[in-house]
Amino acid sequence: MALAKKPVTGMKDILPEEMQIRDYVTGIIKDTYRSFGFTPIETPCMENIGNLCSKQGGENEKLIFKILKRGEKLKLDCAESEADLVDMGMRYDLTLPLARFYANHANNLPSPFKALQIGSVWRADRPQRGRYRQFTQCDIDILGEPSHLAEIELILATTATLGKLGFSGFEIRINEREILKAMAAYSGFPEDSYENIFIILDKMDKIGPDGVEKELKESGFKEESISKYLDLFQMAEKGQTGIKAIESLCSRLSGFLEEQVGQRLQEIIESVEQTKEADFQMVFDPTLVRGMGYYTGTIFEIAIPEFGGSCGGGGRYDKMIGNFTGGAVPACGFSIGFERIILLLMEQGFQIPKQPKRTAYLIEKNYPAEKLCEVMKKAQQARRDGQQVLVARMNKNKKFQKEKLTAEGYETFEEFFNK
Amino acid sequence: MALAKKPVTGMKDILPEEMQIRDYVTGIIKDTYRSFGFTPIETPCMENIGNLCSKQGGENEKLIFKILKRGEKLKLDCAESEADLVDMGMRYDLTLPLARFYANHANNLPSPFKALQIGSVWRADRPQRGRYRQFTQCDIDILGEPSHLAEIELILATTATLGKLGFSGFEIRINEREILKAMAAYSGFPEDSYENIFIILDKMDKIGPDGVEKELKESGFKEESISKYLDLFQMAEKGQTGIKAIESLCSRLSGFLEEQVGQRLQEIIESVEQTKEADFQMVFDPTLVRGMGYYTGTIFEIAIPEFGGSCGGGGRYDKMIGNFTGGAVPACGFSIGFERIILLLMEQGFQIPKQPKRTAYLIEKNYPAEKLCEVMKKAQQARRDGQQVLVARMNKNKKFQKEKLTAEGYETFEEFFNK
Repeated sequence: MALAKKPVTGMKDILPEEMQIRDYVTGIIKDTYRSFGFTPIETPCMENIGNLCSKQGGENEKLIFKILKRGEKLKLDCAESEADLVDMGMRYDLTLPLARFYANHANNLPSPFKALQIGSVWRADRPQRGRYRQFTQCDIDILGEPSHLAEIELILATTATLGKLGFSGFEIRINEREILKAMAAYSGFPEDSYENIFIILDKMDKIGPDGVEKELKESGFKEESISKYLDLFQMAEKGQTGIKAIESLCSRLSGFLEEQVGQRLQEIIESVEQTKEADFQMVFDPTLVRGMGYYTGTIFEIAIPEFGGSCGGGGRYDKMIGNFTGGAVPACGFSIGFERIILLLMEQGFQIPKQPKRTAYLIEKNYPAEKLCEVMKKAQQARRDGQQVLVARMNKNKKFQKEKLTAEGYETFEEFFNK
Repeated sequence: MALAKKPVTGMKDILPEEMQIRDYVTGIIKDTYRSFGFTPIETPCMENIGNLCSKQGGENEKLIFKILKRGEKLKLDCAESEADLVDMGMRYDLTLPLARFYANHANNLPSPFKALQIGSVWRADRPQRGRYRQFTQCDIDILGEPSHLAEIELILATTATLGKLGFSGFEIRINEREILKAMAAYSGFPEDSYENIFIILDKMDKIGPDGVEKELKESGFKEESISKYLDLFQMAEKGQTGIKAIESLCSRLSGFLEEQVGQRLQEIIESVEQTKEADFQMVFDPTLVRGMGYYTGTIFEIAIPEFGGSCGGGGRYDKMIGNFTGGAVPACGFSIGFERIILLLMEQGFQIPKQPKRTAYLIEKNYPAEKLCEVMKKAQQARRDGQQVLVARMNKNKKFQKEKLTAEGYETFEEFFNK
């Protein structure tokens, strides 16, 4: 019987050092989000396979870990395809389960409902450095709030959390799906090609305007449309960031865009800028697309200079819950890049503030029982005083044991019988 | 596209009310165990199917949720049995993953290593009231400590946690596999029947000595052995609890039992009794069996009067890690009945102490953006002061909204434009 010592492919064990940081970060996140009135909830890690494969998860639906049917339900003989073998799958995000949760429990929840979820999700991605097949997501969502109060609260809460974790000088980039669409319409692109155009636009960061132009041409779009389109982005780049860029862009797009869309975006930016706690900037970014097809309005993303790419994001998805309930429910969410934050803190050698004092009593091997109690009593008293106390047997290689404990921050005391 | 609103069969959504209690209990558990020097770790929720089905999980191995192979590895055409279709499974406990973890990382871990795990496990049990197919386990384990210091620390830490959660007047029942075996040997039962005898003995609680006698007879054991066996238990019942019962039982078993076994058990009981923080009793219980086949020495169980059965337990399992490493590693663990504790606290209408003040600002629908900032600033200030603050749009049915918020503990303020 040869047992495997390694974790399963693409997943990892979390060692004490990292775990301490994860617990600390989780604590800050929960405390901060709770101060904004978000309530923790949990859903099972498994969902019905029909829900998971309902075309709301985009590419993630190809990465589902599926659960084999059990007992009589598994009919291997007459199974013709994978679908006959499975009844559930591991969730690939926390948004779809939240939509199901809300549809199931709306009557017992406050309106609006502010949910906080921290949980594992699974994706059978090709394993690569720093990306794992099981990872933690950390989402806040406001359900039942149609106004941009939702966006403002989500951004304030998320940035307050990042600030408390020591991040500063970052950006929240914001855009609107309605503006994305209006820009494409204004340029004269056919409506059924919008999604393809946005996929190309999404690469602006990496390939620049020339690259986007080239790819749009290669896709066979009209030169005139392409040049009108790129012109719009140039305008936004010419020193007109934030509020001003929105104003001039939206006035150009009038006829293609409802007036309130730009106004709402401006109000979000202004309200956040005036009440923010952390050190960051709101930036209007008309090239921001965000992949997931379910967004219907505002979209936003965190850009932290220390990271290459984004460190979380979100947006408004007013239609997803309707897929469960039939009736539309306004919804808006923000997901913080938990794993990237942990990775960065680990790389920076992050030290957790205000750690309790650590004391280790090392007990000689043949210490008599009645004396042992005295050491235990000392240990219990120190624990009552808030210390972290270890009572351990003295190893043969005492020096090595003490060195290791000292490295972990323990002050060690040796307890001999004949002392 | 009909999507399912309910969670998958046998699993449950956790609503805000329960989640608050779970988070509170988790916090107490982590803080208390940390004060005893236990370090949190995590392993993936999936394990290789070979590890899970290595006959260390007893009956639980029949309840594994299995993960379908993916991509090219899934060869449905030539699959002859379930085993050809799966490569991983969901963990059914936290002990087997811990053994794998320790085997994989021992070089980077202190010795002894005191691990704390709180995590979900999955068992495809028949759904029944109050038992779910996904549930939280909460284990502490001490690896690499051969002496009974491990048992003492585990029991002190677990009972301190229960005490901080408000439990009192409970019992820790303790026994030794070596004593169980010696009692069977003394009575003259054949060695290969011990496990069967222990399965019957395990029912003592429910069927009493007469029931055990009857079942042993029905299994065809010798009358003489049965009566010798039951005599031993009677002796322990006749007013001789704790230390005295161990002394007299072990002296009767001399020749079948190493002297140090009884002595060790006595020292555990004495040390715990003299240094315990919570209000509970140590009780020697020679009928305590504990199902899992992997225990090798001490076994113990929590009995809380409010519960029918046990509310957690554990013991020494010195051989399991050796299945991964080849060499034996002493190990001892204690699992606290997390789900049962939550259930009991919920039933008792448990109120979390020291909740922050809750304030809700309800904002009139067409509140202008510049005034909104003033409300947001008030909210931010209250959050800085440690309050939990909600800013929400006033619903059409304002009265109902306020009632709900009041029920959740919020003080509500209405914010009108023309005020």
